[in-house]
Amino acid sequence: MKDLLATSIKYQQGTLYVLDQHQLPHCENWLPCHSADDMIAMIQKLQIRGAPLIGIGASLLLADLAEKGADVDQLRNDAERLRAARPTAVNLMNCIDRMLIALDTDGPLGLSACAEQLFEEDVELCARMAKLGADLIPDGANILTHCNTGSLATAGVGTAIGVISAVKEQGKQLHVWVDETRPLLQGGRLTTWEMARLQVPHTLICDNMAAMLMAQGKVDAILVGSDRIAANGDFANKVGTYSLAVNAHFHKVPFYVVAPYTTVDPDCPNGDAIPIEQRSAAEVQGVGGSFGNVNWSPEGTTVYNPAFDVTPAELVTGWILDTGVYSREQIEAGVLKQL
Amino acid sequence: MKDLLATSIKYQQGTLYVLDQHQLPHCENWLPCHSADDMIAMIQKLQIRGAPLIGIGASLLLADLAEKGADVDQLRNDAERLRAARPTAVNLMNCIDRMLIALDTDGPLGLSACAEQLFEEDVELCARMAKLGADLIPDGANILTHCNTGSLATAGVGTAIGVISAVKEQGKQLHVWVDETRPLLQGGRLTTWEMARLQVPHTLICDNMAAMLMAQGKVDAILVGSDRIAANGDFANKVGTYSLAVNAHFHKVPFYVVAPYTTVDPDCPNGDAIPIEQRSAAEVQGVGGSFGNVNWSPEGTTVYNPAFDVTPAELVTGWILDTGVYSREQIEAGVLKQL
Repeated sequence: MKDLLATSIKYQQGTLYVLDQHQLPHCENWLPCHSADDMIAMIQKLQIRGAPLIGIGASLLLADLAEKGADVDQLRNDAERLRAARPTAVNLMNCIDRMLIALDTDGPLGLSACAEQLFEEDVELCARMAKLGADLIPDGANILTHCNTGSLATAGVGTAIGVISAVKEQGKQLHVWVDETRPLLQGGRLTTWEMARLQVPHTLICDNMAAMLMAQGKVDAILVGSDRIAANGDFANKVGTYSLAVNAHFHKVPFYVVAPYTTVDPDCPNGDAIPIEQRSAAEVQGVGGSFGNVNWSPEGTTVYNPAFDVTPAELVTGWILDTGVYSREQIEAGVLKQL
Repeated sequence: MKDLLATSIKYQQGTLYVLDQHQLPHCENWLPCHSADDMIAMIQKLQIRGAPLIGIGASLLLADLAEKGADVDQLRNDAERLRAARPTAVNLMNCIDRMLIALDTDGPLGLSACAEQLFEEDVELCARMAKLGADLIPDGANILTHCNTGSLATAGVGTAIGVISAVKEQGKQLHVWVDETRPLLQGGRLTTWEMARLQVPHTLICDNMAAMLMAQGKVDAILVGSDRIAANGDFANKVGTYSLAVNAHFHKVPFYVVAPYTTVDPDCPNGDAIPIEQRSAAEVQGVGGSFGNVNWSPEGTTVYNPAFDVTPAELVTGWILDTGVYSREQIEAGVLKQL
């Protein structure tokens, strides 16, 4: 497979490397990934994360294993185990499906071309969404975003953050409110890091401050990513997205979801059918990372910790996909089933 | 002054002590308080917190200083400095006003009786709110609360948590969703601690998870405290309260504010007139406490950190005061101006 380079994944001289996002922003450490076990552990620890990127990462790994001699049975088995590593994000399943078709058609050595194509396609999908989304954002806008959806979450410029970077490239003034995104702080750790790299003016807030900013008229648009969009337009994204959507609806702030077609699951009728990953109590009892580990709650405190929530289509202003920006009327007419 | 004992403040043999809430739940450490400087620092570090309690604490301190020989000028000066220590909470100002009237009327040695009365009155106010509020909560309810409003925030059983404790005493089944309350984690550290002491079943969540619980029908009522209630029923409370109120309105979940009359500011016409304290960036860039100090955001990240937000009266189902439970119609008719 040829060398490939993105902000947080790279394939170099026959080895796949992942930028350890658990250690960002304090430490930029590339981890080699040699097996499905390595990749599954990295996905579950969020060392590699972002719905599009984990699909690309799993595909590059399978191609690498094939080049190193894995047979069809082992590749099928690894593919099934990788598919289950993050139950909510459908991009992973879509990528694995594409890789299994290539395996059936061209055998193990057909996987490299497919993985390279998925990587390069993701870069292009990001660029198209970024352009389509940026055209919707007026000069001088205050944009609010949640979690991290940039070059750390995709092979390209990102989904929601891709739009933000394109707004800046268009020469428009902008300012970004960054939700810290409890419990794993992808906003506070990663989006702040990306905004600084992009030289976009930004301000970090706690998730619970977004509503008062909307009430004060200080938010002109909300842009978020997605881990799965159902056929009716309902979508799953990082927990906290739904609360923003309700507040956006109440305050009449435009609320956009930005995602490539690989995030759409036409077989999933609506949000109720999207499985939601539950994670460990420790993530809510405290925080942990390269910055240290602390636990502030009384020992044994019971916790509820869903990684995602579901936003119903009726709270969404527009779906910014690589194929176009869709209105609620278009979504209701079934456009997502025809992609 | 006679000995007085509450969960987080006590006056014993001529010394005022404060339970250091910055160190809870890991360490129960009582700090002596000898001067206005001590008390102001404790208020600003949230070692003593809760709108009712800081008013009581400042009053007990002034009485103690008077007993130890402070003259009228020094007491007036200390009173003015204490009054400014927490600009949003009006209970502090109300208590200082009562103490200054006692000083004018009876001189320095009149302060002890006034402070004792404020302490004992707060205990009674809590008991009355608790009973009135508990009568509104059905058997088997899931109650959601924000920040900490219990025996750590008052001289008595608390405001919103006082209601929760009375629901349990009435023999009703209940379960409490505890918002962790970023940035200072009063929910994750203190409310969990109080719920465990009260043996109330409870589950800790991140603030951004409350909306999805409401969407799932898992929240039957929201109870919060307040730092200041304006004459029109708008109220300030810990940041994050407003987001809950918008979500409660959208999901048709009853949303109650629980506060003694000392929290009502009839001279404040509406929420826009309530000053909102801004706090340090470090609180949002990381977390700190007896559990340790960590910072997860890139160095120099710009932060917005208001300690409170304002909830407009139209989002409130009922005002649970010590004098009764008031509906929106009663509030609109001006009942708060007549208290």
